[in-house]
Amino acid sequence: MTDATLTLGSLRERYAAGVSPVEVVDEVYARIAARGDDHVWITLLPQETLRAAAAALDPADRDRLPLWGVPYALKDNLDVAGLPTTAACPAFAYEPQASAEVVERLAAAGALLVGKTNLDQFATGLNGTRSPYGVPVSVGDPELISGGSSSGSAVAVAAGLVPFSIGTDTAGSGRVPAALNGIVGLKPSVGLVSGRGMLPACRSLDCASVFAHDVADAAAVLAVIAGPDPDDAWSRTLPVPDAVPTPAPPAGLRLAVPARIDRWGSRGEQAAWEQTLGRIAAAGVDLVPVPMEAFFEAGDQLYSGAWLAERLDGLEGFVATSGDAVWPAVRDVLAGAAAVRGVDTFAALDRMQELRRRTHRLLDGVDALLAPTVTETFTVAEMQADPVALNSRLGRFTTFTNLLDLCAIALPGLPGRVPFGVTVQAPAGRDAELAGIAATLEAILAGRDVAAARAAPSAPLPGELPGEGFDLAVVGAHLEGMPLHGDLLSRGARLVARTTTAPSYRFYALRGTTPPKPGLRRVREGGAAIEVEVYRLPIAEVGGFLATVVAPLGIGQVTLADGGVVHGFICEPWALEDAEDITATRGWRPYLARIAAPGARPS
Amino acid sequence: MTDATLTLGSLRERYAAGVSPVEVVDEVYARIAARGDDHVWITLLPQETLRAAAAALDPADRDRLPLWGVPYALKDNLDVAGLPTTAACPAFAYEPQASAEVVERLAAAGALLVGKTNLDQFATGLNGTRSPYGVPVSVGDPELISGGSSSGSAVAVAAGLVPFSIGTDTAGSGRVPAALNGIVGLKPSVGLVSGRGMLPACRSLDCASVFAHDVADAAAVLAVIAGPDPDDAWSRTLPVPDAVPTPAPPAGLRLAVPARIDRWGSRGEQAAWEQTLGRIAAAGVDLVPVPMEAFFEAGDQLYSGAWLAERLDGLEGFVATSGDAVWPAVRDVLAGAAAVRGVDTFAALDRMQELRRRTHRLLDGVDALLAPTVTETFTVAEMQADPVALNSRLGRFTTFTNLLDLCAIALPGLPGRVPFGVTVQAPAGRDAELAGIAATLEAILAGRDVAAARAAPSAPLPGELPGEGFDLAVVGAHLEGMPLHGDLLSRGARLVARTTTAPSYRFYALRGTTPPKPGLRRVREGGAAIEVEVYRLPIAEVGGFLATVVAPLGIGQVTLADGGVVHGFICEPWALEDAEDITATRGWRPYLARIAAPGARPS
Repeated sequence: MTDATLTLGSLRERYAAGVSPVEVVDEVYARIAARGDDHVWITLLPQETLRAAAAALDPADRDRLPLWGVPYALKDNLDVAGLPTTAACPAFAYEPQASAEVVERLAAAGALLVGKTNLDQFATGLNGTRSPYGVPVSVGDPELISGGSSSGSAVAVAAGLVPFSIGTDTAGSGRVPAALNGIVGLKPSVGLVSGRGMLPACRSLDCASVFAHDVADAAAVLAVIAGPDPDDAWSRTLPVPDAVPTPAPPAGLRLAVPARIDRWGSRGEQAAWEQTLGRIAAAGVDLVPVPMEAFFEAGDQLYSGAWLAERLDGLEGFVATSGDAVWPAVRDVLAGAAAVRGVDTFAALDRMQELRRRTHRLLDGVDALLAPTVTETFTVAEMQADPVALNSRLGRFTTFTNLLDLCAIALPGLPGRVPFGVTVQAPAGRDAELAGIAATLEAILAGRDVAAARAAPSAPLPGELPGEGFDLAVVGAHLEGMPLHGDLLSRGARLVARTTTAPSYRFYALRGTTPPKPGLRRVREGGAAIEVEVYRLPIAEVGGFLATVVAPLGIGQVTLADGGVVHGFICEPWALEDAEDITATRGWRPYLARIAAPGARPS
Repeated sequence: MTDATLTLGSLRERYAAGVSPVEVVDEVYARIAARGDDHVWITLLPQETLRAAAAALDPADRDRLPLWGVPYALKDNLDVAGLPTTAACPAFAYEPQASAEVVERLAAAGALLVGKTNLDQFATGLNGTRSPYGVPVSVGDPELISGGSSSGSAVAVAAGLVPFSIGTDTAGSGRVPAALNGIVGLKPSVGLVSGRGMLPACRSLDCASVFAHDVADAAAVLAVIAGPDPDDAWSRTLPVPDAVPTPAPPAGLRLAVPARIDRWGSRGEQAAWEQTLGRIAAAGVDLVPVPMEAFFEAGDQLYSGAWLAERLDGLEGFVATSGDAVWPAVRDVLAGAAAVRGVDTFAALDRMQELRRRTHRLLDGVDALLAPTVTETFTVAEMQADPVALNSRLGRFTTFTNLLDLCAIALPGLPGRVPFGVTVQAPAGRDAELAGIAATLEAILAGRDVAAARAAPSAPLPGELPGEGFDLAVVGAHLEGMPLHGDLLSRGARLVARTTTAPSYRFYALRGTTPPKPGLRRVREGGAAIEVEVYRLPIAEVGGFLATVVAPLGIGQVTLADGGVVHGFICEPWALEDAEDITATRGWRPYLARIAAPGARPS
C-alpha cells in the first residue's frame, strides 16, 4: 500500500510498471478499511467480487481502454443491475434490471465499480446531512458538512479511496461537495451524458457529474461517458469533448465575475476568493464584473418556485403512502410542491426562457463566468438545526446553472483554502472549451507555468514554402502500405517524416469513398494530434498528382506537431457532416485495425 | 383592374412593366370592395394611407427590396404600432407602442400592410367561427368554414385580395385554413421567426406563419421574416432558408405517410388523399407507412392536456374579471385550464420529450412526413352546433406539430379537390429542405415537370480530368483585375470560361486574409450559383501555383453551372465559421462593389 493519491495518471504508471489490477483493488479496500465507518458507502461490493473483476481484465486491453483497471464509486441514485438503488431511502429502494448507461460505458472502458455512495435523500439537498445512512463529513474538517447531495461520491475521491467517482447534479450536487472537499467537480451540459438509469430529481435538469482530483482526470472520464443516447429522451446532440483538454492561454481569456457578493461565511471565504482572483488576474486573465440578479432569480425557482413540482413528479405516490419514510427536511421541501399550479409552471417556463436570454447575453463577450462555488459552509450541527434555509445559502452560485442551461466545472481555489472553491460556467455545448479554461485556472492557482500552453488553432497560419520540393502530409489512402501509396512513389516522392499533426484536428472516416479515405478537419478547440507521413514531391510532379485528387478532398496546408506547416489534404465541410468521427483512433492505421478486429464495435 | 391572381411574380412583372405601387394599392382596395362584407378584416387601413405609403416607396429600391410594393394582410394578434390589437376580443383590445418584429422586417423589405385580419378569439380554435367580428367562410363553398384560427389571413390570400398574409400557428392555425381555402400555409420551425409583438396563445409553441398561393412565394416571405431576434427569448438560432427553394428530385425522396387514418369526412377527402398519394408515388417518390399513435398522443396534450394551462397564462386575470367578454367556446376550452397542476405539467413535459424522441426516430429514415392537413370539414352551422368536439377533429394531423418540434408546409392536394390539402412536416431546423420537398410535391400535383429539378449536391461527384492542362476555377483574388491575377498569367494560364458554379454553394468573405479573399462552401441545400472564371494552367506549373495557396484555402474540385467539374478553390471549415456569408451577392466583384459603395450596409 502506498500513500500517494490515486489518480488516472498514477494508476497508468503503476500498471505500466507491472502492478496488477488485483493489487490495486486490494489497496482500495485497505484504504476503505483504514477510514472506518465514514458513511461514504451505501453498498460496497465484496472485495472478492472486485478482485475477480480485476483479474478478468485482459492485459491486452490496457492501452486500448481509457479506464482499464480504474476503480470508481457511483452515487446511489444511479442503477446497477443486481444492486439496490436506494436514493438514501431504504423504504423506496428497488433492484433494477439494467444498469444506467453511464455504468455501461464505464464498464466498457475498463473501469471497476467499487460501490454505491451516500447522498442527500432523493438528491434533494446540497449539504450531505439528509440521509439515514449517516453523515459523511468534509475531509478538511470533521466538524463541517461534506456538502451534497453527492456527499459520498465526493468524499470517496477526496479521501483517496478511488481516483474518480460519479455524482449527479440538479442544483449543485456535483459542485458544492467538490468545493467543500477540495476536489474537482465537473457538471457537463444537461443532456451531454445519458440520464438513462438515473432516478430523477428534476428530470429536465438532472445530469450525471464527475468528481476527480484534477481537471484532466475529470475530462478523461467525461470523454468516456459523454455522447448521445438514442434511448434517452433528454439526451442531446452536443459536441463531445476530447479526453485531454487544451488549456486556454491566460492572456486573451476573459472571465465574467460577480459584480457584488452580499454574504460571506466566517471561515475566510471572502479572503480566499479575493486572493484567488488576484492570482488569476496576475496571470493575465481579464476579469469582467457582471450583475448577478438574473442568475439569482433563475436559481430561486428551483427550491422555492415552479420546479419544486418537478421534484415531486414520480415521487408523489410514494410520499402519499410512505411519507414517514421520507427524511424530514426532504419532506419539508416537497411539501410546497403540490401547491404549484400548471399555469404558474408555464409562466415560470416563459420567464426562465427570458432569464436564459439575458444571462447568456451577459456571457456573450466573455469565455466563461467565474464565481465562488460556495460562499460559506456550516458545521453538521448548524445544518441540522436549520436544514432548509442554510441549504439554500449553499446553492447561491450553483442552483441557477442547469435552469439557465450552462455547463460548469468546480475546482479548488488557492491551495490550503479548503473548504473553498471556484466554478467556471458557460452555455451548454461548450464543455470542451470550459475544460480548457478550468485546466488553465488550475495551473495558475497551483503556480504552474501556463504560458507554455499549446498554441490554439486560431494562431496565425504561416505562408509559403521554399520552392525546391513540395512537402505533402498524407493521412489516409496514401500512407505507406495503403492503396494509393503508389501514386506518390511513381512521382518520385520520398518520405521525409513520420509525425503527427498539431493537436488541433478532428479526423473522420468519409462515406462512400473508394478506396476508403479519411478527412482531416482543423478545429478551434477539441482537436487531437493525428498520425501523418510527410513526403517530398518534385515540384513539377505536383500538378499530375493533384489531378488525381477528387472531391471532397483537396490540397491545402496542415500544421504539424512541431508547429511547422506543410501542404496536406483538406476536406470540404459537406462531406464531414455525415462522416464518422474517428478522432479517438488518432490515425488511419489504428482505425482500420479496429474495424478489422473480431468483435469490434463502432466507436 | 385585372382578374389575374396577385402573386409575388405577377407583381414583379407588372412593376417591371411600369405599373406603380399606387395603382396596385387601388386594385387591392377595389378587390376588397368587390368582396363586400366578408368578415376578413378587423382593421382595414384607409386607402389613402396605403396610397401614401405606396407613393413613398423609392423606385430605386425595387430590385433591392425583396417585397417592394407587395401588399399583405396581418392576423390581428400581431402588434402594429398605432393600431389596436384585438385578438378578436374587443374588450381585451390594446394599442401597442411598438410593432411586432415580423411587421418591422416586412416593412424594411418594402411590403405594404393593408390591414389586420379576423381570427378565432385569442387564436384559440381551428375553425374560424369563434369571433364577434363575424365568420369568414371558405372561398370554395360559402356553407363551409374557412378554418382557423387565422381565418381572415387565409381568406384574404385565397380570395385574391393580397398575394400573401401573415398568420400564427400553435395547433394548426396556419395550416388548417390553408387546406380549407386551397392555398399554401407555411409554418416555420418554432423560434425561426421572431415572436416579439405576437399575443401568446401557448408561448412555447406559437409561431408566425405565411399564407401564399404557392410554395415559392411563401418561401420568399419566410426568407424576409426568418432569423434570430436577440430580444425574443424564444427565438432560436436555426438555419435561415434561402428565398428560393431548391426542389428535391422526386426519385430518391422518401416520405412517411400515416399507416392508417380512421376517420374521413363525407366530402371526398379520402378519395382526394388516395389520388394525391397515387400521383406522388407515380412520380417516383417512395412512400413509407408509419404508425401515428405517438404523434396523436402528443397532439392530445394541446387542447385536453397540460398545455391548456399555458393558454391561460397571461389571460387569467382578464378571464377572471371579464369572463362575459370571452367567446363561449373559447371560455369552455379555457375552463379546464385552471385545474392543471404543476406536477402534472412537468410529467407532461417529460412525456412529451419521450414522444419527441419516438416520433423523430420514426422520421429518421425519411425526408418528411406527408399527411392530410385535415381529413374532414364542416359547415358553419355544424361547427356552431358542436364547437369544441368538431374543432378537435380538425386538428388531428396538425396539433402535434409544434409540440413535437416539427416545421410544416400545407399545400393544396390535387387541383379541384378543395377543401382538401396535404402537409409535409420535418424536424425543426429543416425548413429549407422542407420547402424543397413541398415545391416538388406542388409541381407533381400540378402535373409540371420535376424530373429536370436541379441536381442536388449529394449527386455523385465525378473524378479525374484529362491530363493535358489543368482547369482551375477562381472566385476571388485571382479573378481578372484582382491582386493575385498575375500569379495565373505568369504561369501561362489562359481564360477558358466565365460562368457560375452549380447552385450548390455558399460564399463567404474570409476574415483576416491579405489581400481579402472569399471562401466557397458546397452545401447540400440552400446553395446559390457563384460567379467564376476558369483558367487552364500548364500541368507542370500547377505545383508552383499551389505552393502560393495558403490556409485556409486549398485546391479541390468545383462543380460548374453546366454540371462539369473542374479544379478550384475550397476552404477549410474553421475559417468559414466566423466568415461573413455573402452568398446573396453571387460573386466577389458585386461584393467588393457593394462594400465600396457610399452608404453601403452590411448584408
